[in-house]
Amino acid sequence: MRQTTGRTVVPAREGRAVQVAAGQRVRVVDLEGGQVGDLFAFAAGDTGEHLSASHTRSVTSRLFPQVGEAFVTNRRRPILTLVSDTSPGRHDMLIAACDPARYEALDAPGHPSCARNLDLALAELGLSVATTPQPVNVFMRIPVEESGRLRWLPAESRPGDAITFEAVMDCLVVVSACPQDLVDVNAGGPSPLAIDVMD
Amino acid sequence: MRQTTGRTVVPAREGRAVQVAAGQRVRVVDLEGGQVGDLFAFAAGDTGEHLSASHTRSVTSRLFPQVGEAFVTNRRRPILTLVSDTSPGRHDMLIAACDPARYEALDAPGHPSCARNLDLALAELGLSVATTPQPVNVFMRIPVEESGRLRWLPAESRPGDAITFEAVMDCLVVVSACPQDLVDVNAGGPSPLAIDVMD
Repeated sequence: MRQTTGRTVVPAREGRAVQVAAGQRVRVVDLEGGQVGDLFAFAAGDTGEHLSASHTRSVTSRLFPQVGEAFVTNRRRPILTLVSDTSPGRHDMLIAACDPARYEALDAPGHPSCARNLDLALAELGLSVATTPQPVNVFMRIPVEESGRLRWLPAESRPGDAITFEAVMDCLVVVSACPQDLVDVNAGGPSPLAIDVMD
Repeated sequence: MRQTTGRTVVPAREGRAVQVAAGQRVRVVDLEGGQVGDLFAFAAGDTGEHLSASHTRSVTSRLFPQVGEAFVTNRRRPILTLVSDTSPGRHDMLIAACDPARYEALDAPGHPSCARNLDLALAELGLSVATTPQPVNVFMRIPVEESGRLRWLPAESRPGDAITFEAVMDCLVVVSACPQDLVDVNAGGPSPLAIDVMD
Protein backbone atom coordinates (compact mmCIF):
# COMPACT_ATOMS: atom_id res chain seq x y z
CA MET A 1 0.00 0.00 0.00
CA ARG A 2 1.41 3.38 -0.95
CA GLN A 3 1.69 6.08 1.68
CA THR A 4 0.60 9.64 1.05
CA THR A 5 3.65 11.71 1.94
CA GLY A 6 1.96 15.04 1.57
CA ARG A 7 -1.24 16.75 0.56
CA THR A 8 -1.19 20.15 -1.11
CA VAL A 9 -4.56 21.84 -1.26
CA VAL A 10 -5.01 23.96 -4.39
CA PRO A 11 -7.44 26.70 -3.39
CA ALA A 12 -10.22 27.55 -5.82
CA ARG A 13 -8.90 29.71 -8.70
CA GLU A 14 -5.23 29.17 -7.71
CA GLY A 15 -2.31 26.96 -8.70
CA ARG A 16 0.29 24.95 -6.78
CA ALA A 17 3.50 23.10 -7.66
CA VAL A 18 4.80 19.82 -6.23
CA GLN A 19 8.12 18.06 -6.77
CA VAL A 20 7.71 14.39 -7.62
CA ALA A 21 10.53 11.85 -7.75
CA ALA A 22 10.64 9.05 -10.32
CA GLY A 23 8.53 6.18 -8.98
CA GLN A 24 6.38 8.36 -6.75
CA ARG A 25 2.74 8.86 -7.57
CA VAL A 26 0.80 12.09 -7.80
CA ARG A 27 -2.96 12.10 -7.34
CA VAL A 28 -5.24 15.00 -8.23
CA VAL A 29 -8.41 14.93 -6.13
CA ASP A 30 -11.55 16.88 -6.98
CA LEU A 31 -12.52 17.78 -3.40
CA GLU A 32 -16.02 19.12 -4.04
CA GLY A 33 -16.70 17.73 -7.55
CA GLY A 34 -17.22 19.36 -10.93
CA GLN A 35 -13.83 21.09 -10.95
CA VAL A 36 -11.36 21.13 -13.84
CA GLY A 37 -7.64 21.01 -13.08
CA ASP A 38 -5.02 22.17 -15.57
CA LEU A 39 -2.01 19.95 -15.02
CA PHE A 40 1.47 20.79 -16.29
CA ALA A 41 4.60 18.65 -15.80
CA PHE A 42 8.23 19.61 -16.34
CA ALA A 43 11.42 17.59 -16.20
CA ALA A 44 13.16 18.39 -12.90
CA GLY A 45 15.58 21.25 -13.42
CA ASP A 46 14.48 22.11 -16.97
CA THR A 47 11.19 23.87 -17.71
CA GLY A 48 12.17 23.64 -21.40
CA GLU A 49 11.23 19.93 -21.29
CA HIS A 50 7.54 19.60 -20.49
CA LEU A 51 4.67 17.19 -20.88
CA SER A 52 3.47 17.70 -24.45
CA ALA A 53 -0.09 16.95 -25.52
CA SER A 54 0.76 16.68 -29.22
CA HIS A 55 3.71 14.34 -28.66
CA THR A 56 1.60 12.23 -26.27
CA ARG A 57 -1.15 11.89 -28.89
CA SER A 58 1.49 10.96 -31.47
CA VAL A 59 2.99 8.26 -29.25
CA THR A 60 -0.26 6.78 -27.91
CA SER A 61 -2.36 7.26 -31.08
CA ARG A 62 -5.19 8.38 -28.82
CA LEU A 63 -6.82 11.70 -27.89
CA PHE A 64 -6.07 10.84 -24.24
CA PRO A 65 -3.95 8.03 -22.80
CA GLN A 66 -5.59 4.98 -21.32
CA VAL A 67 -4.68 3.63 -17.87
CA GLY A 68 -1.20 2.11 -18.20
CA GLU A 69 -0.10 4.50 -20.95
CA ALA A 70 2.39 7.33 -20.54
CA PHE A 71 2.34 11.03 -21.25
CA VAL A 72 5.57 12.09 -22.93
CA THR A 73 7.53 15.32 -23.12
CA ASN A 74 8.35 17.50 -26.10
CA ARG A 75 11.49 15.31 -26.31
CA ARG A 76 9.26 12.21 -26.45
CA ARG A 77 10.47 10.94 -23.07
CA PRO A 78 7.83 9.39 -20.80
CA ILE A 79 7.20 11.69 -17.83
CA LEU A 80 3.95 10.48 -16.19
CA THR A 81 2.04 7.22 -16.52
CA LEU A 82 -1.72 7.20 -15.97
CA VAL A 83 -2.22 4.57 -13.27
CA SER A 84 -5.78 4.98 -12.04
CA ASP A 85 -8.89 7.08 -12.33
CA THR A 86 -11.94 6.92 -10.08
CA SER A 87 -13.77 9.68 -11.99
CA PRO A 88 -16.21 9.09 -14.87
CA GLY A 89 -13.12 9.22 -17.07
CA ARG A 90 -13.68 12.44 -18.97
CA HIS A 91 -10.47 14.46 -19.32
CA ASP A 92 -9.28 16.80 -22.03
CA MET A 93 -6.06 17.17 -23.96
CA LEU A 94 -7.29 19.45 -26.76
CA ILE A 95 -7.89 22.84 -25.14
CA ALA A 96 -5.31 25.51 -24.27
CA ALA A 97 -5.02 26.85 -20.73
CA CYS A 98 -7.21 29.87 -20.08
CA ASP A 99 -5.06 32.97 -20.09
CA PRO A 100 -5.27 36.75 -19.88
CA ALA A 101 -6.14 37.01 -23.61
CA ARG A 102 -9.04 34.58 -23.10
CA TYR A 103 -10.54 36.71 -20.33
CA GLU A 104 -9.96 39.95 -22.22
CA ALA A 105 -12.06 38.44 -25.03
CA LEU A 106 -14.69 37.60 -22.40
CA ASP A 107 -14.66 41.26 -21.20
CA ALA A 108 -13.00 40.28 -17.93
CA PRO A 109 -9.48 41.73 -18.04
CA GLY A 110 -7.41 40.87 -14.98
CA HIS A 111 -9.41 37.67 -14.31
CA PRO A 112 -7.29 34.88 -12.78
CA SER A 113 -6.28 32.23 -15.32
CA CYS A 114 -4.59 28.85 -15.45
CA ALA A 115 -1.70 30.31 -17.49
CA ARG A 116 -1.13 32.98 -14.86
CA ASN A 117 -1.48 30.41 -12.06
CA LEU A 118 1.27 28.39 -13.73
CA ASP A 119 3.51 31.45 -13.94
CA LEU A 120 2.89 32.30 -10.27
CA ALA A 121 3.54 28.75 -9.06
CA LEU A 122 6.79 28.59 -11.06
CA ALA A 123 7.87 32.05 -9.91
CA GLU A 124 7.70 30.89 -6.29
CA LEU A 125 10.44 28.41 -7.22
CA GLY A 126 12.42 30.97 -9.20
CA LEU A 127 11.33 29.35 -12.47
CA SER A 128 9.56 30.49 -15.60
CA VAL A 129 8.43 29.29 -19.03
CA ALA A 130 8.83 31.04 -22.39
CA THR A 131 5.45 29.72 -23.58
CA THR A 132 2.60 28.10 -21.64
CA PRO A 133 2.59 24.42 -22.58
CA GLN A 134 -0.75 22.87 -23.49
CA PRO A 135 -2.06 21.38 -20.22
CA VAL A 136 -3.70 18.08 -19.40
CA ASN A 137 -7.15 19.22 -18.32
CA VAL A 138 -8.23 16.67 -15.76
CA PHE A 139 -11.99 16.26 -15.25
CA MET A 140 -12.66 18.60 -18.21
CA ARG A 141 -15.43 17.38 -20.49
CA ILE A 142 -14.87 18.27 -24.16
CA PRO A 143 -16.52 15.58 -26.30
CA VAL A 144 -15.56 15.45 -29.99
CA GLU A 145 -18.45 15.05 -32.40
CA GLU A 146 -18.06 13.05 -35.60
CA SER A 147 -17.98 16.34 -37.57
CA GLY A 148 -14.92 17.44 -35.60
CA ARG A 149 -16.92 19.91 -33.54
CA LEU A 150 -15.98 20.19 -29.86
CA ARG A 151 -18.59 20.67 -27.14
CA TRP A 152 -17.82 22.35 -23.81
CA LEU A 153 -19.71 20.65 -20.98
CA PRO A 154 -19.57 21.04 -17.19
CA ALA A 155 -17.25 18.61 -15.41
CA GLU A 156 -19.12 15.60 -14.04
CA SER A 157 -16.48 14.46 -11.54
CA ARG A 158 -17.90 13.74 -8.08
CA PRO A 159 -16.54 14.91 -4.70
CA GLY A 160 -13.46 12.82 -3.95
CA ASP A 161 -12.92 11.59 -7.50
CA ALA A 162 -9.24 11.30 -8.28
CA ILE A 163 -6.86 10.66 -11.14
CA THR A 164 -3.44 9.23 -10.32
CA PHE A 165 -0.17 9.33 -12.25
CA GLU A 166 3.20 7.70 -11.61
CA ALA A 167 6.28 9.78 -12.31
CA VAL A 168 8.60 8.14 -14.83
CA MET A 169 11.28 10.79 -14.24
CA ASP A 170 11.91 13.32 -11.50
CA CYS A 171 9.56 16.13 -12.32
CA LEU A 172 7.74 19.22 -11.22
CA VAL A 173 3.95 19.01 -11.45
CA VAL A 174 1.81 22.14 -11.38
CA VAL A 175 -1.97 22.00 -10.99
CA SER A 176 -4.27 24.98 -11.43
CA ALA A 177 -7.82 24.79 -10.10
CA CYS A 178 -9.33 26.38 -13.21
CA PRO A 179 -10.80 29.80 -12.34
CA GLN A 180 -13.17 29.80 -15.31
CA ASP A 181 -16.54 31.12 -14.10
CA LEU A 182 -17.74 32.77 -17.32
CA VAL A 183 -18.05 29.57 -19.38
CA ASP A 184 -19.73 26.56 -17.78
CA VAL A 185 -16.86 24.09 -17.50
CA ASN A 186 -16.59 24.01 -13.69
CA ALA A 187 -19.92 22.68 -12.46
CA GLY A 188 -21.21 24.89 -9.66
CA GLY A 189 -18.37 27.39 -10.06
CA PRO A 190 -14.68 27.20 -9.16
CA SER A 191 -13.76 24.99 -6.19
CA PRO A 192 -10.52 23.60 -4.72
CA LEU A 193 -8.51 20.54 -5.67
CA ALA A 194 -5.87 18.58 -3.77
CA ILE A 195 -2.56 17.15 -4.95
CA ASP A 196 -1.37 14.08 -3.03
CA VAL A 197 2.17 12.81 -3.49
CA MET A 198 2.58 9.13 -2.58
CA ASP A 199 5.67 6.98 -2.08
CA MET B 1 -8.22 37.84 -59.51
CA ARG B 2 -5.22 37.46 -57.24
CA GLN B 3 -1.77 37.33 -58.78
CA THR B 4 0.81 34.80 -57.68
CA THR B 5 3.83 36.90 -56.77
CA GLY B 6 6.14 34.01 -56.21
CA ARG B 7 6.38 30.25 -56.08
CA THR B 8 8.74 28.53 -53.69
CA VAL B 9 9.24 24.85 -54.39
CA VAL B 10 9.78 22.80 -51.24
CA PRO B 11 11.89 19.85 -52.35
CA ALA B 12 10.93 16.42 -51.03
CA ARG B 13 12.11 15.97 -47.40
CA GLU B 14 13.04 19.67 -47.04
CA GLY B 15 11.54 22.87 -45.61
CA ARG B 16 11.23 26.45 -46.83
CA ALA B 17 10.16 29.77 -45.32
CA VAL B 18 8.19 32.59 -46.96
CA GLN B 19 7.35 36.07 -45.66
CA VAL B 20 3.67 36.93 -46.04
CA ALA B 21 2.18 40.38 -45.50
CA ALA B 22 -1.23 40.90 -43.94
CA GLY B 23 -3.85 40.53 -46.67
CA GLN B 24 -1.67 38.35 -48.88
CA ARG B 25 -2.55 34.74 -49.43
CA VAL B 26 -0.34 31.70 -49.13
CA ARG B 27 -1.21 28.50 -50.96
CA VAL B 28 0.35 25.12 -50.29
CA VAL B 29 0.22 22.90 -53.37
CA ASP B 30 0.73 19.15 -53.31
CA LEU B 31 2.61 18.88 -56.61
CA GLU B 32 2.58 15.10 -57.02
CA GLY B 33 -0.18 14.13 -54.56
CA GLY B 34 -0.18 12.15 -51.32
CA GLN B 35 2.27 14.44 -49.56
CA VAL B 36 1.90 15.84 -46.04
CA GLY B 37 3.12 19.37 -45.33
CA ASP B 38 3.93 20.55 -41.81
CA LEU B 39 3.04 24.23 -41.74
CA PHE B 40 4.26 26.64 -39.05
CA ALA B 41 3.45 30.35 -38.86
CA PHE B 42 5.09 33.02 -36.74
CA ALA B 43 4.26 36.69 -36.17
CA ALA B 44 6.72 38.77 -38.22
CA GLY B 45 9.72 39.64 -36.09
CA ASP B 46 8.80 37.38 -33.15
CA THR B 47 9.15 33.61 -33.28
CA GLY B 48 7.79 33.59 -29.69
CA GLU B 49 4.32 34.24 -31.12
CA HIS B 50 3.30 31.34 -33.33
CA LEU B 51 0.24 29.66 -34.73
CA SER B 52 -1.02 27.46 -31.88
CA ALA B 53 -3.09 24.35 -32.49
CA SER B 54 -4.51 24.23 -28.96
CA HIS B 55 -5.53 27.89 -28.94
CA THR B 56 -7.05 27.49 -32.42
CA ARG B 57 -9.14 24.51 -31.24
CA SER B 58 -10.21 26.52 -28.19
CA VAL B 59 -11.31 29.49 -30.30
CA THR B 60 -13.01 27.55 -33.11
CA SER B 61 -14.39 24.68 -30.97
CA ARG B 62 -13.33 22.35 -33.78
CA LEU B 63 -10.50 19.85 -34.34
CA PHE B 64 -9.65 21.81 -37.49
CA PRO B 65 -10.98 25.17 -38.71
CA GLN B 66 -13.57 25.31 -41.47
CA VAL B 67 -13.18 27.54 -44.51
CA GLY B 68 -13.66 31.12 -43.30
CA GLU B 69 -12.31 30.43 -39.81
CA ALA B 70 -8.97 31.61 -38.47
CA PHE B 71 -5.99 29.93 -36.89
CA VAL B 72 -4.80 31.93 -33.88
CA THR B 73 -1.48 32.33 -32.13
CA ASN B 74 -0.46 31.41 -28.61
CA ARG B 75 -1.60 34.97 -27.79
CA ARG B 76 -5.01 34.20 -29.33
CA ARG B 77 -4.51 36.67 -32.19
CA PRO B 78 -5.74 35.54 -35.64
CA ILE B 79 -2.75 34.85 -37.90
CA LEU B 80 -4.10 32.90 -40.91
CA THR B 81 -7.63 32.41 -42.19
CA LEU B 82 -8.48 29.26 -44.12
CA VAL B 83 -9.91 30.56 -47.40
CA SER B 84 -10.07 27.58 -49.74
CA ASP B 85 -9.21 23.95 -50.11
CA THR B 86 -9.33 21.92 -53.32
CA SER B 87 -8.15 18.72 -51.60
CA PRO B 88 -10.45 16.03 -50.15
CA GLY B 89 -10.30 18.13 -46.97
CA ARG B 90 -8.34 15.87 -44.66
CA HIS B 91 -5.82 17.81 -42.59
CA ASP B 92 -4.45 17.22 -39.12
CA MET B 93 -3.97 19.40 -36.07
CA LEU B 94 -3.37 16.67 -33.47
CA ILE B 95 0.06 15.25 -34.26
CA ALA B 96 3.46 16.70 -33.34
CA ALA B 97 6.08 17.36 -36.01
CA CYS B 98 8.37 14.42 -36.64
CA ASP B 99 11.70 15.09 -34.98
CA PRO B 100 15.05 13.47 -34.26
CA ALA B 101 13.60 11.61 -31.23
CA ARG B 102 10.85 10.15 -33.43
CA TYR B 103 13.37 8.73 -35.89
CA GLU B 104 15.67 7.48 -33.13
CA ALA B 105 12.68 5.47 -31.85
CA LEU B 106 12.23 4.16 -35.41
CA ASP B 107 15.91 3.08 -35.49
CA ALA B 108 16.76 5.78 -38.01
CA PRO B 109 18.98 8.28 -36.18
CA GLY B 110 19.94 11.25 -38.33
CA HIS B 111 16.85 10.92 -40.54
CA PRO B 112 15.55 14.29 -41.81
CA SER B 113 12.53 15.55 -39.87
CA CYS B 114 9.98 18.35 -40.00
CA ALA B 115 11.28 19.78 -36.70
CA ARG B 116 14.81 19.91 -38.11
CA ASN B 117 13.52 21.35 -41.40
CA LEU B 118 11.86 24.15 -39.41
CA ASP B 119 15.11 24.84 -37.56
CA LEU B 120 17.09 24.94 -40.82
CA ALA B 121 14.60 27.23 -42.57
CA LEU B 122 14.61 29.62 -39.61
CA ALA B 123 18.40 29.52 -39.31
CA GLU B 124 18.72 30.77 -42.90
CA LEU B 125 16.95 33.91 -41.67
CA GLY B 126 19.01 34.14 -38.49
CA LEU B 127 16.01 32.96 -36.42
CA SER B 128 15.32 30.11 -34.03
CA VAL B 129 12.63 28.70 -31.72
CA ALA B 130 13.00 27.47 -28.15
CA THR B 131 10.45 24.69 -28.73
CA THR B 132 8.96 23.34 -31.96
CA PRO B 133 5.35 24.55 -32.09
CA GLN B 134 2.71 21.97 -32.98
CA PRO B 135 2.29 22.26 -36.76
CA VAL B 136 -0.76 22.33 -38.99
CA ASN B 137 -0.31 19.13 -40.95
CA VAL B 138 -1.88 19.85 -44.32
CA PHE B 139 -3.11 16.83 -46.31
CA MET B 140 -2.35 14.55 -43.32
CA ARG B 141 -5.07 11.98 -42.68
CA ILE B 142 -5.54 11.15 -38.99
CA PRO B 143 -9.19 10.21 -38.43
CA VAL B 144 -10.44 10.11 -34.83
CA GLU B 145 -12.53 7.09 -33.89
CA GLU B 146 -15.40 7.38 -31.44
CA SER B 147 -13.24 5.65 -28.81
CA GLY B 148 -10.66 8.43 -29.09
CA ARG B 149 -8.26 6.24 -31.02
CA LEU B 150 -6.34 7.92 -33.86
CA ARG B 151 -5.60 6.15 -37.13
CA TRP B 152 -2.64 7.04 -39.35
CA LEU B 153 -3.59 6.80 -43.03
CA PRO B 154 -1.75 7.76 -46.23
CA ALA B 155 -2.57 11.22 -47.55
CA GLU B 156 -5.22 11.11 -50.28
CA SER B 157 -4.53 14.56 -51.79
CA ARG B 158 -4.23 14.50 -55.59
CA PRO B 159 -1.54 16.14 -57.77
CA GLY B 160 -2.22 19.87 -57.80
CA ASP B 161 -4.51 19.88 -54.76
CA ALA B 162 -4.04 23.04 -52.74
CA ILE B 163 -5.04 24.65 -49.46
CA THR B 164 -5.01 28.43 -49.25
CA PHE B 165 -4.74 30.76 -46.28
CA GLU B 166 -4.99 34.54 -45.99
CA ALA B 167 -2.57 36.26 -43.64
CA VAL B 168 -4.33 38.28 -40.94
CA MET B 169 -1.03 39.75 -39.76
CA ASP B 170 2.43 40.04 -41.28
CA CYS B 171 3.94 36.63 -40.71
CA LEU B 172 6.56 34.10 -41.57
CA VAL B 173 5.23 30.79 -42.87
CA VAL B 174 7.41 27.68 -42.92
CA VAL B 175 6.38 24.52 -44.75
CA SER B 176 8.19 21.21 -44.45
CA ALA B 177 7.54 18.50 -47.03
CA CYS B 178 7.35 15.74 -44.44
CA PRO B 179 10.27 13.32 -44.89
CA GLN B 180 8.47 10.44 -43.16
CA ASP B 181 9.15 7.28 -45.15
CA LEU B 182 9.04 4.72 -42.33
CA VAL B 183 5.35 5.18 -41.47
CA ASP B 184 2.85 5.29 -44.33
CA VAL B 185 1.57 8.88 -44.13
CA ASN B 186 3.03 10.14 -47.42
CA ALA B 187 1.39 8.05 -50.13
CA GLY B 188 4.06 6.76 -52.51
CA GLY B 189 6.89 8.20 -50.42
CA PRO B 190 8.11 11.76 -49.86
CA SER B 191 7.56 14.22 -52.72
CA PRO B 192 7.80 18.00 -53.16
CA LEU B 193 5.30 20.74 -52.34
CA ALA B 194 5.04 24.33 -53.53
CA ILE B 195 4.25 27.50 -51.61
CA ASP B 196 2.61 30.26 -53.65
CA VAL B 197 2.32 33.76 -52.22
CA MET B 198 -0.46 35.80 -53.85
CA ASP B 199 -1.29 39.50 -53.68
